[in-house]
Amino acid sequence: MSFILFQDQIIPREQGKVDIEDRGYQFGDGIYEAIPVYGGQMFLLDLHMKRLKRSANELRLQLPFNIDLLTEKLNKLIGLNRINDGIVYFQITRGSAPRQHFFPDQAGSILTGSVVSHDWRGNHDSGIETSLAEDIRWLRCDIKTLNLLGNVLAKQYAHEQGSQEAILHRGENVTEGASSNVFIVKNNHLITHPADHLILNGITRLFVLELAERLGITVDEQTFTLDDLFSADEVFITSTGNEVMPVVKIDGRTVADGKAGDVTSKLGEAFTGEVTQFIASAIS
Amino acid sequence: MSFILFQDQIIPREQGKVDIEDRGYQFGDGIYEAIPVYGGQMFLLDLHMKRLKRSANELRLQLPFNIDLLTEKLNKLIGLNRINDGIVYFQITRGSAPRQHFFPDQAGSILTGSVVSHDWRGNHDSGIETSLAEDIRWLRCDIKTLNLLGNVLAKQYAHEQGSQEAILHRGENVTEGASSNVFIVKNNHLITHPADHLILNGITRLFVLELAERLGITVDEQTFTLDDLFSADEVFITSTGNEVMPVVKIDGRTVADGKAGDVTSKLGEAFTGEVTQFIASAIS
Repeated sequence: MSFILFQDQIIPREQGKVDIEDRGYQFGDGIYEAIPVYGGQMFLLDLHMKRLKRSANELRLQLPFNIDLLTEKLNKLIGLNRINDGIVYFQITRGSAPRQHFFPDQAGSILTGSVVSHDWRGNHDSGIETSLAEDIRWLRCDIKTLNLLGNVLAKQYAHEQGSQEAILHRGENVTEGASSNVFIVKNNHLITHPADHLILNGITRLFVLELAERLGITVDEQTFTLDDLFSADEVFITSTGNEVMPVVKIDGRTVADGKAGDVTSKLGEAFTGEVTQFIASAIS
Repeated sequence: MSFILFQDQIIPREQGKVDIEDRGYQFGDGIYEAIPVYGGQMFLLDLHMKRLKRSANELRLQLPFNIDLLTEKLNKLIGLNRINDGIVYFQITRGSAPRQHFFPDQAGSILTGSVVSHDWRGNHDSGIETSLAEDIRWLRCDIKTLNLLGNVLAKQYAHEQGSQEAILHRGENVTEGASSNVFIVKNNHLITHPADHLILNGITRLFVLELAERLGITVDEQTFTLDDLFSADEVFITSTGNEVMPVVKIDGRTVADGKAGDVTSKLGEAFTGEVTQFIASAIS
């Protein structure tokens, strides 16, 4: 039997139902987070919760209860579902109210959450193939909202091309992946789109930037073009589910020599090292 | 007791619940329509259903059953809820599936619908006040999807300014309202944004264009600027809920002499005439 979180209650999965006038259902009026679970524990939790609060503030959405209680309930959910390696997903909507566009006075936010197993042994050695797609999303991609159709359509397009991710671009400029951030390496120098309103500031992105600094790899958070992408020495994406993932093909064109590059591998190993340490410290 | 439509079943309102993994709830992956009801009958039904099919096609979303059955059920819903003047709302999502961005193989579309009373005597004589807001939405506004946060935030902003609608603009160009289309009149000439990917092609918009043609009013479907808006002889919006509604103020600035203009009134009267005829023919 699997369990989910509904507000602050843990209930059987099959009872997870929401009202048809929940604003999440009618407007996508809500936010979410996805947090990796290693060794039964949530990794980079504080960064995820900080971003959650930012998303809520930007949309003036009230959290239904505080972060400590939420953390406690999510931990309980992980335990009850016996998840060792997995991903916690939860979302908060503005709740149910008679349909009108502006914020309702009376609705109370609705939180629903779940946790699924995830196999962290991905294809990090061989890397993934990607497809380019025009970034047609709105101009507040910095908020982690439920308005994800632009991402969905790009991912579906990539999927149909036999790719694992879509790399989005606004005209000549690369922004991010459909559900990841994109990095390029040029002359041992790391470049990724700045964390402005055009991308979601990924938690793995932030952590990789920190790891790069520790490793003495110089970083530029600056806009780069499709030409930069195709002429890069290395390309990789970061996301909760993918960690640090080499990109070996873009629209069928091989990136550099078609193998994971040195900088990418170094960052991937540093990431894995941090996770290993996290699991060890969680056990002790 | 009030009733709603859930797939092809009419059920009590309070039983209207959907699964937490419905893609409408997690991605806004769905479409909708709102159809006016006059004298207990749906007005401009065919145009609404045609647009529904277009939206479904653009997102490759399967309708759960055919339009004839949908129409029959919506009519039954109107009758059971004893609605004479109102608005039918229904939405179709891609259904419930384990969360992943690309389209699931197995999910079945979910249709939910309701009908509420609506008082058609609006403030058509005095007109409404509006506020300007930057149009930050995605680039497929032509599809009537559930990704409505951009519209929600604009409407909320207008609401806080004491306005009834937000007029959206991309830079210098006026696109449409947060939940309406915008028209201006210059020298007895009607101008409105072309029905491209930047606006939703409103059914009332389409009908008003037809009425204008019948009345011999020349129409240009072309982009117009904020300057054009402020220097217009008349401004009005169209939507299912507002019909033809004069705009008398924009960001506190009075439009022309602050009264409903001649062309606006002529179109409003023509619209009302059509509705009166529709009700009469529905009764007979």
